[in-house]
Amino acid sequence: MRLGDVIRDLRTTDGPSIVLLVLDGLGDVPAASTGYRTPLEAAKTPNLDAIAPKSALGRLTPVAPGITPGSGPGHLGLFGYDPLEVTVGRGVIEALGVDVDLSPADVAARANFATLDADGRVTDRRAGRIADDVNRRLCEEHLQGIDVGDGVSVTITPGKGHRFVAVFRGEGLGGHFTDSDPGREGEPIREVSAIDGDDRARHTAGVVNRFWREATKRLQGQDPANAILLRGVGGLPEIEAFGDRFGLRGCAIAAYPMYRGLAQLVGMTKIPTEDGPANEFATYEKVRSEYDFAFIHVKATDMYGEDGNFDGKVGAIEAVDAALPDLLATRPGVLAITGDHSTPVAYAGHGWQPVPVLVHAERAGGDGLPRFSERTAVAGLLGSLRSCELMPVLLASAGRLAKYGA
Amino acid sequence: MRLGDVIRDLRTTDGPSIVLLVLDGLGDVPAASTGYRTPLEAAKTPNLDAIAPKSALGRLTPVAPGITPGSGPGHLGLFGYDPLEVTVGRGVIEALGVDVDLSPADVAARANFATLDADGRVTDRRAGRIADDVNRRLCEEHLQGIDVGDGVSVTITPGKGHRFVAVFRGEGLGGHFTDSDPGREGEPIREVSAIDGDDRARHTAGVVNRFWREATKRLQGQDPANAILLRGVGGLPEIEAFGDRFGLRGCAIAAYPMYRGLAQLVGMTKIPTEDGPANEFATYEKVRSEYDFAFIHVKATDMYGEDGNFDGKVGAIEAVDAALPDLLATRPGVLAITGDHSTPVAYAGHGWQPVPVLVHAERAGGDGLPRFSERTAVAGLLGSLRSCELMPVLLASAGRLAKYGA
Repeated sequence: MRLGDVIRDLRTTDGPSIVLLVLDGLGDVPAASTGYRTPLEAAKTPNLDAIAPKSALGRLTPVAPGITPGSGPGHLGLFGYDPLEVTVGRGVIEALGVDVDLSPADVAARANFATLDADGRVTDRRAGRIADDVNRRLCEEHLQGIDVGDGVSVTITPGKGHRFVAVFRGEGLGGHFTDSDPGREGEPIREVSAIDGDDRARHTAGVVNRFWREATKRLQGQDPANAILLRGVGGLPEIEAFGDRFGLRGCAIAAYPMYRGLAQLVGMTKIPTEDGPANEFATYEKVRSEYDFAFIHVKATDMYGEDGNFDGKVGAIEAVDAALPDLLATRPGVLAITGDHSTPVAYAGHGWQPVPVLVHAERAGGDGLPRFSERTAVAGLLGSLRSCELMPVLLASAGRLAKYGA
Repeated sequence: MRLGDVIRDLRTTDGPSIVLLVLDGLGDVPAASTGYRTPLEAAKTPNLDAIAPKSALGRLTPVAPGITPGSGPGHLGLFGYDPLEVTVGRGVIEALGVDVDLSPADVAARANFATLDADGRVTDRRAGRIADDVNRRLCEEHLQGIDVGDGVSVTITPGKGHRFVAVFRGEGLGGHFTDSDPGREGEPIREVSAIDGDDRARHTAGVVNRFWREATKRLQGQDPANAILLRGVGGLPEIEAFGDRFGLRGCAIAAYPMYRGLAQLVGMTKIPTEDGPANEFATYEKVRSEYDFAFIHVKATDMYGEDGNFDGKVGAIEAVDAALPDLLATRPGVLAITGDHSTPVAYAGHGWQPVPVLVHAERAGGDGLPRFSERTAVAGLLGSLRSCELMPVLLASAGRLAKYGA
C-alpha cells in the first residue's frame, strides 16, 4: 500500500488547528567564517527558548542528502509532497513570483529580451540588461495582445531588467518543453518542442512557437531588445489537492508572491498580508477561525542568508522571536517552526543541510532540549525526517490521523 | 536487487540464538501531563541499567513518521515484514485474538449481533450490546453448523458483548470483501462483494452472503439480536515464511492469543505459556534448545499505557527488569528488547513515535549510554531504523548474514 493512500484513508477532517511557520532558509552551517556558530545559535530568542524544552525537536532533509533545493521543492516538501515526485517548472515558479494567478490548464514560460543580429543569431541573450522601465514599455507596446490563434490568450508580466513572464491560457494546453533560448550567444533561436510528446503537448508547442516568432517580428528595429527567448516552458504539475490529501482547509500568509503562489498551487487560499512576522501573525489572528491549517512564510531569514549577512539573519530570527507571543496567544493546536531549506551565511546561497524543526503541541510532548538550533535538534525525539514526512507528523500531533491496521 | 532477496541469499541457518523481547506499547512521550518523563525513564531498572552501556541502542519507527500502527502492523514490522506491503485484515486479527487456528486458505470476519426492524432495516448495529452469556448461547444454538454449501464449514467463536468471529474454511476461498454492515442505523444489510474481484473472491462472496442470510433467518424472532453484520471479511495475506526468509526456527511465547497468532501467521511455532515476564522467561528456558529464534511478548506495558496509567506502566517495566536475570541466564546469543509501537500514557492509546530498541550481543558492542530510554536511544549507534529493518540487524548481530558482494 502506498503511504499517501494510507494517509488519505486515515485522516479525519476535524481536530485542532495547525500552524506551519516557515522561516525561509532558516538552517545554517557553523562555518569557520561565522566563528563556528549558526544564526539560530547566536540569536537572542527568549520566547523560542521558553517553548523549546516543551516541544518535540527534529531535523528535516528537504530533498535528499547533498541535494540543495530551490524554493519550489523546499516548500512542496513542507506541504507534504515528495519533491522528487512533484516538480514545478521554472516558468511556473517565475509566474508565481510575479503574482500571476495560474489555472491548472495554463502553460507558463520565463522569458528574456535578447538581441539578434541580421543573420538571426543571438548576440546578447539579455539584451544588454535593459532597465525595468524599458522592459515595461516594450511589453506594453509590443507584446500584449499578440494573437497566437486557436483561442489562446497570452498574458505578459514584466519582471526585473530583461526578464518577463508569459502565460498561455486556452483549451487543450499542457506539457513540458525545450527552451527556445539556445543557451549561448552566436546561435539562432530554437524551435520549442514537446518533451513528453503527446498531442496536447505538440499542439501547445505550435502555439508557443507562433508566439515567440510574432513577438520577435513586432520587436524588429528595437535596439538592443529586438527578440525574445523562452525558457522553462511548461504547464502546472498534477497535484492532489492539499485538502483532499490531508483533510485540512489551508491558507497561506506570505508577503512574497512566489510563496503564496506555491501554496495556492496545492490548493491553499492566499490571504493578503503586510510583510514581517508581526504583521503576518496579526493577519493569521484575523482569519484563523476559517482555516484548519495556516502556512506563514517569513522571507527575511533567507534574504540575509543570501547576502551572507550573519548579523542580518540573526536579527531576522530575533524579529520572529519578538513577535512569537502574538502567535502563541492564538493558541494553535499544533505549531511547527522550521525552514524550507538551509541558506548558510557562509554560502550566501541555499544549502542542502537538514533544517531544524520544532513541533509545539500537547501530543508532541517536550524533549527537554534547552534551545532550538541545528545542533540541539540532533537529539530531538522527532528524529531525522524528510520534509515531506512532516505533514503526517503534524496531523498525528493534532490527533487527526486514525490508527493503521488493527 | 531487492533487499529481501539479498537477505535470503546471505542468511545462514546456523549461529547463536536470537531472542526478541517485545514490551507491547513500550515507547512513550515525555508529555506535560507526565512531568516530561516517560515510564522507561521513571522506572527503576537495575538489570536493564547494567546491560544498557554494554548494548547497542537505537530507535524503531513501526510504519512511517506520523502513522500510528495497530498491533498487526507493529508486530509484522518486528518480524521483518514491511507493514505497508503485508497487511492483515481486521477479521483475521479478530480471529487470532480469540485463538482461532487459521490456515492459509481460511477467510475470517468480525461479526456483530444486530437488530433489524420489520422492513429489514438495521435499528441497532450492536443489538443493545447483549451480555457475553447471551452471545455464547445464540452462537451455540443458532449459528453453529450452518450449511453454506460448496463444502465450506463455518466456525463461530463468541467474543465480548455483541461480537463474534466467523471463519470460513473450504476449497477455493480467499480475497478481501466489503462489509455487510451498512455502517449506520436505518439502512438494510448490504451484500458482501469482492474488492479484488477474481473468480475465487466472487465464489467466496457468494458463500459469505449465504451465511449471513441463513444466520439472520435462524435468528428471526430473537430480541434484540435478530441479525448479524459482517466486517473486515478477508483471507490471510500471502506471507513468505519467517523460516525461509531468515533461516530461523522461530517460536512465539505470548500469553495473549492475538500476538502468538500473528507470529504463527508468519510461521513461528506457538508455545503455551502463563502470563507475565517471569513465567514467559521460564517457558523460554524449557523450549529454547529447539529454536533459533524466540519472540517473547509482554502485554502489561501496553495495557497500562492504554489506561493512561503512568505508575502501572512503570511497574510493568520494573516487573520485566526484575525477571530479566532469568532470561540473561539462558545466555541468548542476541537479545533485543523493544516494543511493537508506542502507547504514550498521555494518549491512553497508541502513538506513532519511534520505539527505543536495545540489542545485547557480543557483535553489537556497547554504546556506553547510561540507561535504556526514548531519549538515550537517540544517541545510540544503531541509529533510527524502520521496525522491519531490525531483523537483518539481529541476524548480523548473530553472525548469521554473510557478506554482500566481494
